[in-house]
Amino acid sequence: MEIITIGDELITGELLNTNAVFMANALTDRGHQVISITATGDDEWQIQDAFLKARDRVESILVSGGLGPSKNDRTVSSAAKALGLRLVMNKELLEALRERFLQKGLEMTPAHEKLAYLPHPSEILSNPQGIAPGIVIRHRGKLFFLLPEVPLELNQIFREKVLPLLEKEQGENTCFRIRTLKVFGLSEAAIADRLQEIEPKNFSASLANLPRYPENHIKITVQGPIPGEVEANLLHMETLVREKMEDYIFAKNHETLEEIVGHLLRGHQYTLSVAESCTGGLVAHRLTQVPGSSDYFERGIVAYSNQAKMALLGVPKSVLEKYGAVSAPVAEKMAEGVRMSSQTTLGVSITGIAGPGGGSEGKPVGTVFIALASPNSTVSKKYRFEGDREQIKVASAHTAIDWIRRYCLDQLPRSK
Amino acid sequence: MEIITIGDELITGELLNTNAVFMANALTDRGHQVISITATGDDEWQIQDAFLKARDRVESILVSGGLGPSKNDRTVSSAAKALGLRLVMNKELLEALRERFLQKGLEMTPAHEKLAYLPHPSEILSNPQGIAPGIVIRHRGKLFFLLPEVPLELNQIFREKVLPLLEKEQGENTCFRIRTLKVFGLSEAAIADRLQEIEPKNFSASLANLPRYPENHIKITVQGPIPGEVEANLLHMETLVREKMEDYIFAKNHETLEEIVGHLLRGHQYTLSVAESCTGGLVAHRLTQVPGSSDYFERGIVAYSNQAKMALLGVPKSVLEKYGAVSAPVAEKMAEGVRMSSQTTLGVSITGIAGPGGGSEGKPVGTVFIALASPNSTVSKKYRFEGDREQIKVASAHTAIDWIRRYCLDQLPRSK
Repeated sequence: MEIITIGDELITGELLNTNAVFMANALTDRGHQVISITATGDDEWQIQDAFLKARDRVESILVSGGLGPSKNDRTVSSAAKALGLRLVMNKELLEALRERFLQKGLEMTPAHEKLAYLPHPSEILSNPQGIAPGIVIRHRGKLFFLLPEVPLELNQIFREKVLPLLEKEQGENTCFRIRTLKVFGLSEAAIADRLQEIEPKNFSASLANLPRYPENHIKITVQGPIPGEVEANLLHMETLVREKMEDYIFAKNHETLEEIVGHLLRGHQYTLSVAESCTGGLVAHRLTQVPGSSDYFERGIVAYSNQAKMALLGVPKSVLEKYGAVSAPVAEKMAEGVRMSSQTTLGVSITGIAGPGGGSEGKPVGTVFIALASPNSTVSKKYRFEGDREQIKVASAHTAIDWIRRYCLDQLPRSK
Repeated sequence: MEIITIGDELITGELLNTNAVFMANALTDRGHQVISITATGDDEWQIQDAFLKARDRVESILVSGGLGPSKNDRTVSSAAKALGLRLVMNKELLEALRERFLQKGLEMTPAHEKLAYLPHPSEILSNPQGIAPGIVIRHRGKLFFLLPEVPLELNQIFREKVLPLLEKEQGENTCFRIRTLKVFGLSEAAIADRLQEIEPKNFSASLANLPRYPENHIKITVQGPIPGEVEANLLHMETLVREKMEDYIFAKNHETLEEIVGHLLRGHQYTLSVAESCTGGLVAHRLTQVPGSSDYFERGIVAYSNQAKMALLGVPKSVLEKYGAVSAPVAEKMAEGVRMSSQTTLGVSITGIAGPGGGSEGKPVGTVFIALASPNSTVSKKYRFEGDREQIKVASAHTAIDWIRRYCLDQLPRSK
């Protein structure tokens, strides 16, 4: 299977090719093998060339882009030329287009009439979200799917039309199941070491270890002819991986750390407040990305200055002077202060040096203290994160949010 | 020119092809025409196929990925096979590798020795950041660049070695200049309308209008044989675009809005504090992404609950009850409250409904009030942003940060 994406903006580096990634991901997840992704410009010769080369190599070719009414949209005409097909006006489609424009009170121009000319023979994949329909061409035993480039339109047609059609073509000999387990707090190498002991080959399964900074994702793929067996093997693999990764696994599939934390806080009826220094609001921002987070998130304080740490969080001047703003005692006072003033179950704090300036020999850039104040105690820990300012902010915020998860699960951070 | 990126993770949709975008962007900016970007897996036949097809079409082929020591790294051997070259051990390179491993106290395995075998003839592009060097192969008048996939390594070799080499090959017949002007506060359509009146064709120039939510970027490209003329034309085009866009242009090239705001605040010696509700810390997070922002950013308050708005920002209970938390009076009290307690020059606030829940008929999802308190006055304005929770947060934060820019430039927000 090959993916061809068309548009000048893709080969000039103006746009990331997210459509190709979306399709490749969905296809791979269903056991289809994508062997190549090509991005080409709006040039008719280049498009024809890409079509013909793909036709020589694979059975199915997924194409997106260049279906619109503008004169730069040349996918349909190029497909027709490359495959030696005529363009024939489809009266029903033209009527449907006229109807659509009428309903919206818009004028249909001659440019739009171009959309009703389709390679003959071909089939229409209707596009409820847009005006240019998808097109399927069967040619010498090969399948060409021409799809729009607007992600919303592409996604719908792809899921509702293309995948089922490919499944039918593929037959029902093979069943695929995928599961992603998300890990935080272990390095890629440490995960690889732990995974090595699992021997997945007996189960027609494979394991991939994917770094997704600051997380790592373990992708389990299982295939086989019998759905029940495949499901059982997937569960077996998941159990093996979970045993090896212990409580470093925080979520599966599309769940995010902040969603998991939200579920846990809501489940325990805990409320939360946050006091941030070096992360500058990133923890609050991420926690409040979750719809409904106002149920448990009470407030966040970004206390960048010492003045703010004293006035808003009640950090004593003497503690700041004795230990410095980046220290365990200050982190603890910040967590206790925000918890106290907001009357929440938990208070979390972060203070550190995100860089590039501000580091010293004793406290180099990347030194970060995290503290969590709860009804019974306050704990804190020193970290040393690597990377640039943004990476240090991201790793610090992730670690702090993971502390909340671990508190709710009674797995408070251990020394490493 | 073509780009070929190699790695299974690219064709399974696990990774966005950012290396290809980086190279395509840099090449296009220097006037090179990229006609195709191909992503292929770690399969030797596919790699050879991609190499040979590219060789038939273009003069220069940029390849990244598959240079490492693992058995899945097959780019060098595939290149040699495709082009009919022998792999020859390069003694100097082997010595250099040994030296490097020794210095780092690491053991060099037989797998690493593979890195010293190069197609003959070829040249080395040294890789100060990593172990596998880049390789240039000249073959039948065509140039192949084999480059590593680690972005840090790729970027350095690409900028320091590949671009100068390509420039030399290209000759100095054409000079290119690019400038990007960043716009915020005008829709893509409004920008297109304003740009339409500019007739760039006379100046061997082109204008592109690129949506980069929530910003729009206008890219000016000018080319010609005489550097002085090209420079003058670029300036002329920039002046025309700036006249049309007025004060909606906030930055050029790689500058970000928060960097511009940082420069302005520092220049005026203003200090800043922020009170956020629906943006949940995003404004503070973005402002503190700028190194050195602690010079002007004093504190941020994420007052999600009414309790926090009263206790931390001094919003009177009566105002909250009378107007509701999402209202102009509350936004103004929040801005004044945070400014007062932090003793900063400016106080900025945001209160709104990011959704998906919480909307009502009078105040639908996307209703956001922004206020700015300064030494002389407090202003506020109601907005209605479109999109999902994240888009509403992003648009709100961007608007609030833009208010700070406009205040510093004496261009306070106008009604639209």
